[in-house]
Amino acid sequence: MIQRVASAAVLLPLVLLSIFYLPQSLFLLLVDVFLGLAVFELLRLLNNSGLGTYWLTLPLTLLLPWIWSFDPGKVLPYLVSSGLLCMSLSLLHKRELHLGFLRSSGNFMVLFFLGVPLSIAAELQNNRPLELAFILFVIWTADTGAYLVGKKWGRHKVTPRLSPNKSLEGYVSGLLLSALAALLFGLYFFPDWSTVHLGFVGIFLGTLGATGDLFESMIKRGANLKDSSQLIPGHGGVMDRIDSLLFALPAYYLFSLLIK
Amino acid sequence: MIQRVASAAVLLPLVLLSIFYLPQSLFLLLVDVFLGLAVFELLRLLNNSGLGTYWLTLPLTLLLPWIWSFDPGKVLPYLVSSGLLCMSLSLLHKRELHLGFLRSSGNFMVLFFLGVPLSIAAELQNNRPLELAFILFVIWTADTGAYLVGKKWGRHKVTPRLSPNKSLEGYVSGLLLSALAALLFGLYFFPDWSTVHLGFVGIFLGTLGATGDLFESMIKRGANLKDSSQLIPGHGGVMDRIDSLLFALPAYYLFSLLIK
Repeated sequence: MIQRVASAAVLLPLVLLSIFYLPQSLFLLLVDVFLGLAVFELLRLLNNSGLGTYWLTLPLTLLLPWIWSFDPGKVLPYLVSSGLLCMSLSLLHKRELHLGFLRSSGNFMVLFFLGVPLSIAAELQNNRPLELAFILFVIWTADTGAYLVGKKWGRHKVTPRLSPNKSLEGYVSGLLLSALAALLFGLYFFPDWSTVHLGFVGIFLGTLGATGDLFESMIKRGANLKDSSQLIPGHGGVMDRIDSLLFALPAYYLFSLLIK
Repeated sequence: MIQRVASAAVLLPLVLLSIFYLPQSLFLLLVDVFLGLAVFELLRLLNNSGLGTYWLTLPLTLLLPWIWSFDPGKVLPYLVSSGLLCMSLSLLHKRELHLGFLRSSGNFMVLFFLGVPLSIAAELQNNRPLELAFILFVIWTADTGAYLVGKKWGRHKVTPRLSPNKSLEGYVSGLLLSALAALLFGLYFFPDWSTVHLGFVGIFLGTLGATGDLFESMIKRGANLKDSSQLIPGHGGVMDRIDSLLFALPAYYLFSLLIK
């Protein structure tokens, strides 16, 4: 617990500084460091679940944030090419033919599951840094609150199979805290957003954060591992720390395209 | 064999007529008929391989060609949303947790493997119908030639595990026929394309055609089925007939974007 607080106390100011002060290319490099570690962890988890993984998945994913930032019109062709590559690679395997389609799909999905959210983070940092800080603030407040409330008062298990430590009390407080965090942040920094809009966005982010968290739990449970790695003291691996963002970031982004 | 020739004799003129005379919306409807049947066959194959499939995959895939044609800027957001949906759906399954990531990836891949090539076919029909006819002519000439040569003179098996009926003789003649078909078609219809370019494009299409064919063989072998269905007399299912196009169409399209 002390380790957890200490890690957060070191990482949080660094994250804020990099959002507001790093130039685009350096932020992209930073994104690629986290992305690379996360891809590495995910491929290890997938391997543990019995899926063959391609080393090519790593560079394909690391390249995505750069294309997304510097040549957005090429993202779709890049994804289509990557899909073709992953499918072709599955033909080279000699064993477990029946896994071929899934192997290519699973490797390709890494680009969507990890590459797209972090590409969106990089785009937001460059164009709308305050909104990126907003998303992180809401998600991390909800995460931490849900964890603490669940630990102390959690009684009713709702997702025993996917994530046995989660409780209804934790989920509900997570959602309430998301709305509260969104309102607090918004009152200061987005004075032209209405209270209703802020509350809605907060609950939207909180729901998607919990979904991303559950999705990673499912992957880890499938691989019979508790943490994605032991990289961050008290927090597990990089994936354990960013899992709530992996659905929330793209969903927020899509939503903001929709209402624009 | 006679069935095979008869089916082709009926289908070929219909295909040509629809490429050159159908208005965009009717062609899109036609594409969706084939796409729907192919998705249905693929989901059945994947189910046979032990993967849970989502009914949502079908409408998600059928919508893609329409978005691709009428609002190309929305394709990427649509794909990202579909990925999020597929991932979220995997959380609802009660059993086989370790398959969750693969189940979502496999269902999502259907959009790329089947939806993208047929969306590209619809775009080409609308903007560059002669090039669509060119691709079909090259691929189908090579397919048929490789099949006939392989049947008569095929001795050396090269892909026994993936597709035991294919021979080196068949592959080589398929490639040669692709180049020949491209040259013949090009001399008449693309007088400003050089002979070298035509030969290169022919071999490129032939190679990708064979790859797509092998990829479908792998899926069918994984599912322990010989044909994707028995819909077209003598030809198996829809997927059996379009498999060579599934890599060739997007690769041709990406290549044409690159040299533009």
